[in-house]
Amino acid sequence: MTDVGAPSLIALDWGTTAQRAWLLDGEGTILATRRPELGLLPTTAGINVRDARARAQAYEAAFWSACGDWVLAHPQLPVLACGMVGSAQGWAEAGYRTVPAELRFGADALLRVEHRRGAAHLVPGLRMPSQDGRPGDVIRGEETQIVGALEVLGDPAEPVTLILPGTHGKWVRVDNGEVVSFATAMSGELFGLLTTGGILARTTTEPRRDDEAFARGLAAGTGPSRGLSTELFGARPLVLDGLLDPASVPDYVSGVLIADEVGHAASTVGRGRVVLCGTEDLCRRYATALAAHDIVPTVLTEDVAARGLWRIALSTGLRGASGNHVPD
Amino acid sequence: MTDVGAPSLIALDWGTTAQRAWLLDGEGTILATRRPELGLLPTTAGINVRDARARAQAYEAAFWSACGDWVLAHPQLPVLACGMVGSAQGWAEAGYRTVPAELRFGADALLRVEHRRGAAHLVPGLRMPSQDGRPGDVIRGEETQIVGALEVLGDPAEPVTLILPGTHGKWVRVDNGEVVSFATAMSGELFGLLTTGGILARTTTEPRRDDEAFARGLAAGTGPSRGLSTELFGARPLVLDGLLDPASVPDYVSGVLIADEVGHAASTVGRGRVVLCGTEDLCRRYATALAAHDIVPTVLTEDVAARGLWRIALSTGLRGASGNHVPD
Repeated sequence: MTDVGAPSLIALDWGTTAQRAWLLDGEGTILATRRPELGLLPTTAGINVRDARARAQAYEAAFWSACGDWVLAHPQLPVLACGMVGSAQGWAEAGYRTVPAELRFGADALLRVEHRRGAAHLVPGLRMPSQDGRPGDVIRGEETQIVGALEVLGDPAEPVTLILPGTHGKWVRVDNGEVVSFATAMSGELFGLLTTGGILARTTTEPRRDDEAFARGLAAGTGPSRGLSTELFGARPLVLDGLLDPASVPDYVSGVLIADEVGHAASTVGRGRVVLCGTEDLCRRYATALAAHDIVPTVLTEDVAARGLWRIALSTGLRGASGNHVPD
Repeated sequence: MTDVGAPSLIALDWGTTAQRAWLLDGEGTILATRRPELGLLPTTAGINVRDARARAQAYEAAFWSACGDWVLAHPQLPVLACGMVGSAQGWAEAGYRTVPAELRFGADALLRVEHRRGAAHLVPGLRMPSQDGRPGDVIRGEETQIVGALEVLGDPAEPVTLILPGTHGKWVRVDNGEVVSFATAMSGELFGLLTTGGILARTTTEPRRDDEAFARGLAAGTGPSRGLSTELFGARPLVLDGLLDPASVPDYVSGVLIADEVGHAASTVGRGRVVLCGTEDLCRRYATALAAHDIVPTVLTEDVAARGLWRIALSTGLRGASGNHVPD
C-alpha cells in the first residue's frame, strides 16, 4: 500500500547558495516546501572546508536547522539530498558517475552520512572527463532534475536536449535515457558580475524590469552580432544617446548574454525535443531567445528536482513502494 | 627655427585610471615622461562631480601636482591634454566631433581651461551616434593616438583598421585620413571582473604568466567555439581534471576573451592595413589572435599619443613650427 498524504521522504536540493527541502508523501507528492537558503556557502562560512569533521558537523547542523522538526515528528523518514551537498566542500564527497551514464540509480549509488537521529543519503553527480585538451564538465544536482524531467516527459526514447538556465546554466543531451554529454554556460554569473561591478553597473540607475530592453538586447546579440564583449558595451552608448533608460540596462545585458549563449548552443541541439527547466523568469527569457532559432521548448518548473529525488528514492530502495525502507 | 632639445610642449594623455605626461621639444621628441597615475577616478575621488567648480579645482590641483615644476621652469609652455580629462566628469567638457571626421584639428577645436599660471587646452573626442536602435559609440583619447599612429604610418590614403586593446578596447576604421567608424569591446573589463570575482577567480591560485595556457584559451575561443560564456567556464573543469594549473587560469581566460573579440571583429576588417597600438603585452596577445585569421598587424607603441598631441598642437597653432604660440 502507498501512504497517500502521509510523510514518506525528506528530499533536499542543496546547492551552492540555495537550499530547498520538501516533505513528500507515499506517492512523491509535495506535502510541504521550504527554502531555508542554507546552501554550501552559508553552511561552510567560517569553517575550514578541508576539515571533513568540521564540515560534517556544519552540514548536520544546517540540515537539522532546516528539517529537524520533520525528523522529530517522523523519526523513520528517509532523507535524500542532491547538489553541492555531495561535493568535496559538501557534507561528504558523493563522487561522480561518468557519462555516458544511465539515469537509473541502484542501491549502491548513494552515499550515506549520519545525523543525530539517523542517516541522510547523497546523490552522486555526473562527470564528463576533459579529452584531448578540451574541457570536460561536472554536474551536481542537475542529474536529479533531469531524472524528474524525464519522468514528467514520459521517459522518451528519442533524444532530448535539456536546458537548465542559472548562474552556471547547463545544456544536457539525453538519448534513450542516457546522459550523453553536457556543457556549462556561465551567462548568469557574467550577468551578476556586469550588473554589480564595472562600467555597465555604473551606467545603471535603480533597475526596473523592461521586456522591451530585453528584446532589444536579444536582437543585438542574435545573428551576425559584433560579439559578446562589443554588444554588451553597446548598452552604454545607447544610454548616453538617450535611447535606453539607465534603469533598463540589466534587461538589455540579459538579452545580449542569453542571445549569445543560445545562438552558439542552438546549432548543437540536433533532433529531438528541447526542454527548458528553471525559474519562470529565466525560462521565459530562454524561450524567447530559442524562438529566434525556430526552437519551441517544453517548459518545466524547478520542482522536477523533488520528482527526481522521489524517483531516485524508489529506484535505490531508500523508499520502497510500500512502507519505509532504509538500506544499510 | 625649431628648438631641438628645448622644452616646447607639455602633453598629457589623461584617462580614467591612468595619466601620462610628456615634456616635448621643438620637434615633438620626448624629453621626459611621467606616469603620475592621477586619472579621472583618483582625481575626482571625494568631490561632487556635478559641481563644475569643484571639478575644475581638483583637476587643476592634479595637473599642478603632475606638471607644476615643468610650468614653473618654463612659464610660456603651452599645455595640451587628451582623454577623459575632456569628459563630462573631466576638467571641462571638451565635446565630441561626429564621424565621419577628418583627423585634422583646427584652432577652434580645442577647449581652453585656466590654471594658476596660464591655460591648458583639451582635445575633443569622437562620437558615432546610435542609429536605428543600433548602439553608436564615443572615443576620448584614442582620437589622439590615431593622429599619432597615422603620422608614424606616413598618412596612408588606403583604409586602415586600428586596434587599440585595453579595458575598453577600440576597433577603429580610418579611410583617406577620416575616421569612418569604431566600436568598443569590453574584453579587458570582462577579464578584470572574471579574475577578481566569481568562480574562475576562486579557481585561481597566485597567478603566473603562462603563454601556453593563453594559447590554449585562444584555441578554445577560435573558430567553431561553443560561445564565450561556455568556453570561459571551461577553465574550471580543466583545473578540476588536473589539465590546467590553477595559477594559469587568468592566461587561459585572456585567450578565450581575445579569441572571441578578434574572431568577431576580424570579419569586419576588410581591405587595408591592420595596426595594433597598445602595451607590449596586449599587442603580443592580439597579434597572436589575429594570426589565426591570417592578419599580420603593424605594431605601434602607446607613445603614439605623445606624437598625436604634438601634431594637434601644430595644426591648432597651439605650438607654432617656430617658437611658442599660445592662442587666445
